[in-house]
Amino acid sequence: MSILIRNGLVVNATGTHAADVLVQDEKIAALVTPGFPLEADTVIDAAGKYVIPGGIDAHTHMEMPFGGTQSADTFETGTTAAAWGGTTTIIDFAVQAKGTSLLSTMDKWHEKADGNCAIDYGFHMIISDVNDASLKEMEACIEGGVNSFKMFMAYPGVFYATDGEILRAMQKARETGSTIMMHAENGIAIDQLVAQALAEGKGDPVQHGLTRPPELEGEATNRAIQLAKVTGAPLYIVHLSAAQALDAVTAARDTGQNVFAETCPQYLYLSLEDMARPGFEGAKFVASPPLRPKEHQATLWRGLRTNDLSIVSTDHCPFCFKDQKQLGVGDFSKIPNGMPGVEHRMDLLHQGVVKGELTVNRWVEITSTTPARMFGLYPRKGVIAPGADADIVVYDPIARQTISSETHHMAVDYSAYEGMEVTGKVDTVLSRGRVVIADGTFHGGAGHGKFLSRELNQYLI
Amino acid sequence: MSILIRNGLVVNATGTHAADVLVQDEKIAALVTPGFPLEADTVIDAAGKYVIPGGIDAHTHMEMPFGGTQSADTFETGTTAAAWGGTTTIIDFAVQAKGTSLLSTMDKWHEKADGNCAIDYGFHMIISDVNDASLKEMEACIEGGVNSFKMFMAYPGVFYATDGEILRAMQKARETGSTIMMHAENGIAIDQLVAQALAEGKGDPVQHGLTRPPELEGEATNRAIQLAKVTGAPLYIVHLSAAQALDAVTAARDTGQNVFAETCPQYLYLSLEDMARPGFEGAKFVASPPLRPKEHQATLWRGLRTNDLSIVSTDHCPFCFKDQKQLGVGDFSKIPNGMPGVEHRMDLLHQGVVKGELTVNRWVEITSTTPARMFGLYPRKGVIAPGADADIVVYDPIARQTISSETHHMAVDYSAYEGMEVTGKVDTVLSRGRVVIADGTFHGGAGHGKFLSRELNQYLI
Amino acid sequence: MSILIRNGLVVNATGTHAADVLVQDEKIAALVTPGFPLEADTVIDAAGKYVIPGGIDAHTHMEMPFGGTQSADTFETGTTAAAWGGTTTIIDFAVQAKGTSLLSTMDKWHEKADGNCAIDYGFHMIISDVNDASLKEMEACIEGGVNSFKMFMAYPGVFYATDGEILRAMQKARETGSTIMMHAENGIAIDQLVAQALAEGKGDPVQHGLTRPPELEGEATNRAIQLAKVTGAPLYIVHLSAAQALDAVTAARDTGQNVFAETCPQYLYLSLEDMARPGFEGAKFVASPPLRPKEHQATLWRGLRTNDLSIVSTDHCPFCFKDQKQLGVGDFSKIPNGMPGVEHRMDLLHQGVVKGELTVNRWVEITSTTPARMFGLYPRKGVIAPGADADIVVYDPIARQTISSETHHMAVDYSAYEGMEVTGKVDTVLSRGRVVIADGTFHGGAGHGKFLSRELNQYLI
Amino acid sequence: MSILIRNGLVVNATGTHAADVLVQDEKIAALVTPGFPLEADTVIDAAGKYVIPGGIDAHTHMEMPFGGTQSADTFETGTTAAAWGGTTTIIDFAVQAKGTSLLSTMDKWHEKADGNCAIDYGFHMIISDVNDASLKEMEACIEGGVNSFKMFMAYPGVFYATDGEILRAMQKARETGSTIMMHAENGIAIDQLVAQALAEGKGDPVQHGLTRPPELEGEATNRAIQLAKVTGAPLYIVHLSAAQALDAVTAARDTGQNVFAETCPQYLYLSLEDMARPGFEGAKFVASPPLRPKEHQATLWRGLRTNDLSIVSTDHCPFCFKDQKQLGVGDFSKIPNGMPGVEHRMDLLHQGVVKGELTVNRWVEITSTTPARMFGLYPRKGVIAPGADADIVVYDPIARQTISSETHHMAVDYSAYEGMEVTGKVDTVLSRGRVVIADGTFHGGAGHGKFLSRELNQYLI
Repeated sequence: MSILIRNGLVVNATGTHAADVLVQDEKIAALVTPGFPLEADTVIDAAGKYVIPGGIDAHTHMEMPFGGTQSADTFETGTTAAAWGGTTTIIDFAVQAKGTSLLSTMDKWHEKADGNCAIDYGFHMIISDVNDASLKEMEACIEGGVNSFKMFMAYPGVFYATDGEILRAMQKARETGSTIMMHAENGIAIDQLVAQALAEGKGDPVQHGLTRPPELEGEATNRAIQLAKVTGAPLYIVHLSAAQALDAVTAARDTGQNVFAETCPQYLYLSLEDMARPGFEGAKFVASPPLRPKEHQATLWRGLRTNDLSIVSTDHCPFCFKDQKQLGVGDFSKIPNGMPGVEHRMDLLHQGVVKGELTVNRWVEITSTTPARMFGLYPRKGVIAPGADADIVVYDPIARQTISSETHHMAVDYSAYEGMEVTGKVDTVLSRGRVVIADGTFHGGAGHGKFLSRELNQYLI
Repeated sequence: MSILIRNGLVVNATGTHAADVLVQDEKIAALVTPGFPLEADTVIDAAGKYVIPGGIDAHTHMEMPFGGTQSADTFETGTTAAAWGGTTTIIDFAVQAKGTSLLSTMDKWHEKADGNCAIDYGFHMIISDVNDASLKEMEACIEGGVNSFKMFMAYPGVFYATDGEILRAMQKARETGSTIMMHAENGIAIDQLVAQALAEGKGDPVQHGLTRPPELEGEATNRAIQLAKVTGAPLYIVHLSAAQALDAVTAARDTGQNVFAETCPQYLYLSLEDMARPGFEGAKFVASPPLRPKEHQATLWRGLRTNDLSIVSTDHCPFCFKDQKQLGVGDFSKIPNGMPGVEHRMDLLHQGVVKGELTVNRWVEITSTTPARMFGLYPRKGVIAPGADADIVVYDPIARQTISSETHHMAVDYSAYEGMEVTGKVDTVLSRGRVVIADGTFHGGAGHGKFLSRELNQYLI
Repeated sequence: MSILIRNGLVVNATGTHAADVLVQDEKIAALVTPGFPLEADTVIDAAGKYVIPGGIDAHTHMEMPFGGTQSADTFETGTTAAAWGGTTTIIDFAVQAKGTSLLSTMDKWHEKADGNCAIDYGFHMIISDVNDASLKEMEACIEGGVNSFKMFMAYPGVFYATDGEILRAMQKARETGSTIMMHAENGIAIDQLVAQALAEGKGDPVQHGLTRPPELEGEATNRAIQLAKVTGAPLYIVHLSAAQALDAVTAARDTGQNVFAETCPQYLYLSLEDMARPGFEGAKFVASPPLRPKEHQATLWRGLRTNDLSIVSTDHCPFCFKDQKQLGVGDFSKIPNGMPGVEHRMDLLHQGVVKGELTVNRWVEITSTTPARMFGLYPRKGVIAPGADADIVVYDPIARQTISSETHHMAVDYSAYEGMEVTGKVDTVLSRGRVVIADGTFHGGAGHGKFLSRELNQYLI
Repeated sequence: MSILIRNGLVVNATGTHAADVLVQDEKIAALVTPGFPLEADTVIDAAGKYVIPGGIDAHTHMEMPFGGTQSADTFETGTTAAAWGGTTTIIDFAVQAKGTSLLSTMDKWHEKADGNCAIDYGFHMIISDVNDASLKEMEACIEGGVNSFKMFMAYPGVFYATDGEILRAMQKARETGSTIMMHAENGIAIDQLVAQALAEGKGDPVQHGLTRPPELEGEATNRAIQLAKVTGAPLYIVHLSAAQALDAVTAARDTGQNVFAETCPQYLYLSLEDMARPGFEGAKFVASPPLRPKEHQATLWRGLRTNDLSIVSTDHCPFCFKDQKQLGVGDFSKIPNGMPGVEHRMDLLHQGVVKGELTVNRWVEITSTTPARMFGLYPRKGVIAPGADADIVVYDPIARQTISSETHHMAVDYSAYEGMEVTGKVDTVLSRGRVVIADGTFHGGAGHGKFLSRELNQYLI
């Protein structure tokens, strides 16, 4: 079974060249100069279009348990929506429940995902309990292809880890070469501000933002960096939203420390003002860290250009406005934290190309190549090259579309970008050689996606 | 009762001028050009000597309770030793025991000090319990003349306050104009390192230093600064020892934030190497933060020149080597933390003048004038000016002396500077108009020293 | 001849205290507690008023030659206006004309000033020719009491010195302990921008500001700092106006380098917008460096608080609007550079106290004490202390006044602050013991002011 | 004519994958999975070896005129030596002589190179005269494929441009999208130090280093950056050698400014100590900027990792020790500035991989891919991809060799790395599809190399 993608412009992280791409079964078999004689069962004409490595969304939460309910997308609906948007790999978070083991957690997540995913997937592991047993289990996780461990400086009583626990996990990360991912907000201080706001009768969604000042993200980011310095562990800051946090990351990177950071589309396009929309509308935008004042946006775009921000992931964690978000009417602290986004990351970032914030190569780099290299998937993913998985997106850079919950494929009843017009649109998507999106139709299926056992971070030295 | 100090060189923080000083009863009544006709009961000839405001040691721990024992100097022995060394005011720390109130603590400390001090004294308050009641009591403390509140990011389970508790206390400080003093070390992470060292059989005194890396002082300092920024509270970092912490202070001060810091003589003259002296000798130098590698010393001297370090205090907290320090043989974590020093601060810093690290005016500023202004004692203390308390030191800048436990007056069986030769020596000391040191003899007495009700920090704007 | 100033509040740089001040002949003879029995020929009642050391304006240009004309104030009119405003010392710039010697220049300036000044004065020396002879002459200048040497990185063909010339002069400064003062703007690059603007027909006053971007002040400031670092010379940046320049100064000061800077009232209160006033009005505000966009003002106020800006001088260099400023109608490059200000510095800065930007002590420090210490006049000037010159201002902190050319005493036909209402006003001024301003009348006279032979910078270490 | 390179490990900037490479005529026709059926006239077995894009040395000076003599390598000998070392493209500097035009200069350099080069080559243009005519000619240069213009802040009287000239050229660069390359040393100040050293009888080679302090490279680098900021021009700092200069570049890059920098192998491996070798040996290491104290080396390696240094070029400018370097015996200022290096750049940098300073991908990036993208050669050069020129190096990562003038191919009588043993060695080199190095033999020829008309810098946004 072979497919030849003809006449497209292959866009990789380092540059762009006209080339034809031959897919054999699940792999890219050849890149050749346009017109080089090759035969194939099927030919896709990519004239006037980009041929790019499929997007990799390194931060999703499908069917994540949350206080009796769960995030609205299942692995099936979430990965299908991802495919629609040109993302062919997700890395989702397995969540250790307090008192359970990491390995049983991994088993549980395998169970959830196995047979249900439309695209390939990997896992990060959230460590909620740090103790001798769980630290030991980190080794088994790594052998099982899960070598990035997320911890929280926020959410006391839920996921929160003390600095001592973080230190211990970082020591283990250093020892094993794995990476610690950090939700960096000073949750202990924030909880005071939250309690004070509620005590003063301030319950609106915008309070979620006001009680989590950017200084407390900057502080926690620096703290994580210093703990990483003391231990020698690689550190990856998830969903960085504030200029103060970026400053801390930039300072560390300037010294050559192994510190990396991602941001998310919502921090590039939305702001604290959205959380202050009339009525309860702001709840749609409640996530942590919160949306920031508009002036942070330009700083984040700049960080993407300077590579102090290396990756854009979605932190896709959708909750329906009805019934779910509405749990927090009158008490913002009860609003489920999270926003949908897995479907529109490629388009939203391509908009950065259109606006002149990014080159087309940088677009591919931050959405696909760097995630692949950072999370041990390269050269299997993240590049158009022989031997790589045939995760390929034919992308039309000129087509126009409007984002709306009426047309999106995520199982959530609103869009954070409702009505936004964007230039650029997915044309055709291959996942491991199989055409899953073409002609505006989904041709894939649950169970096509396979678990990805990941290698170590390739940026370390 | 009047005293005329003739022919000396009056050294103030901003400059030096020849002047005679007339003391009437407890106050300075006049500063006049040399030879201006004034009469007095007694004349002190200060020819060839400096006339400086008495030293103010803003950080001492007299008879501090500690695990069943207490620090070796009583208020009587400690303040007497201070007087010998040209210090005429101490600000000691009242220590709230968990479960007790701030006011009862203040009462208890008044009881300890009242009638026992050879020189004037004030109190800071250590807050161990942050709750509605203690926050409310801060107001009464301020009315009682105690308006600086110390908190600890170190010593979990003892004095440690969470970031949420710090935030609340800072909010109260902001509201009342009082100052939060911070012991800035990440005690939670340090405790892990300590436990690991002990588990590995590493029990020597030098491990105290190795398990408290300077990055964790820098981190905590930055954290305190960010919490102060969020709340608007004035912040004073006590006993800063590490270049990393100084960097954080410098960055904040460059932005105009109300952040201040002190260092101590031991961090300027001693180093981690001293903690590694053979046998158990290193225990003599166990204090927190620990002595640092030698290269930090030049950075601290520079900080004193650039005013990023504003004050030098002693953190005087003596424990005898015998019986007290020896509690930690084989387990460094059991060594009582603290070093003696109240007697030699003025001499040790004058040594900085001799070496060319400081001007003579800066010497007076960091040891007397700035502490007076920072802690609301100015212009009563910290300056040679009419109306000020006659706390005056006639200092001989040329005399030589050797520091030794055999000759010092502190009630502790060792000196951290044993055998060190220094240039400069106290000649005569007046405390509120009374000659307490003269002709190598102590003429003062317990009970002469009075409690100082302090005004607010004069550096705020 | 003696004067007793009673019941005032003596404000010094480090603090404030109630004290009576006895003046005998030209000197302060005694500071005593209020009511201490002292006799005097005259008594001045200062109740409700500040008693402060007379202002020192370290940067003026009286009757400065400029392209056939000269600045509008003579030494007589200028120093008289200064006295009206509470300034009792100026340091004016002797200007070496190309091809002449430093010593003949000094002689010429002595000739101009001698017998004509109402208050004391000193000189800085502007070096226009750097060569073996002039470098050698620096030594004689220093012996003659002129030990600060100004150079220009701006004004090519006029005062401009090359980096090589600057380096040589700095080496001499290092050798002699004298200070290099720097006009730090990249004049070579600026001249290109000026020529381009004129070639494009842009001749309005605001172009003066637009062709001198703040980056080019920041650049030159950094360059001067690096040359000072290479040579070890003390450096004093004059009339700093841009945030970029302050950043460079701050960075250097953080490392402990002997770098200092002054700003001027015009940069604190006026902005680029004033240069864009309709018609030719903007010419009134043409000086170099130019007024900056408003957002620089807050940064400069902050710099005054953090002591990265140590002094406020006026750069008083008045040119009448009529006939003088008007030389540049249609060609901004022909507008004489400079603004009047010597009379209102104390009031304008006191306004900073009123607005909460500065403490009253910092006001005294940046307008009097620090200039005295920086330029070798302390303790003769800059402080209320026995033995100091009786240069004393009784200042009414509550009186209101309106600044206007109709009421000012400077010999210039406009005020840059026309119509501005300020709180605070000079009540009485003594210059070396002589009452020169009292009861709204000038009691002084040309010739009272004496030349001040200055010592070295007291901030060096 | 086709060649198939089999079984090698293709190393690109973003990653490494096993692939066979098919070359047809001058181009890469296909990349395929190993074993994919392809036919070719010749097969090269690359088992156990890297297949990398040929090196691009973006900074060479072949047969450069210098004071009556010229650099020792002709285009023929220099490009042949480059090929031996795995470099398949050089960008050499055409040097405008004062008073001549840019276009005649370009013609002259075409004449020198045409028919003489063993590998492809491009030109940068050195602008010595900035005037209306030469600025206008920049446009023609760009049309002629030369779009990077080098200027000098050093060498007054020779290449030195004033800040005003730099500003004008930068404005033109901004307008045309071309890049200004800068030799950033403060030559005006340096010339003073040189003259002083000579006047003091200090003539040894090491004085070359001592009279060019690193602060003066840092200063000039910052100045160039600020001028670039004012004009909006892209800036490329050549041969960065000092930590101070790297600091300036890092600060600018953190803000997102289009500032780039290269360093050279000599700054990574050699130091000021080499310039102080006994006798006149130090002259072998005389280049500008000079070799720095050893502690700068680690900073430069780190800069390569953090991408604040983007490229390593050689600044190859060889002068024979005999007769050429010896012109400066007794007077270091007469030593021709420059060192040989074009042959060993790839090996020396691969040594960085061996030592753990760089990943193998970063090695390819800084020596080939980034120069190609920075200087408008990508995707023709700098990558192994279909359609690219078949400039390919088969590199043996395990072979050992010793660098020596006895075995090198550069036309110079010494090696700066004499006796240095390195791991890694070029095995086979293709230049535009022609095997030029194989089996330890040169199979190429003068005239094979073609001029490369370059596109604009691809890093700009």
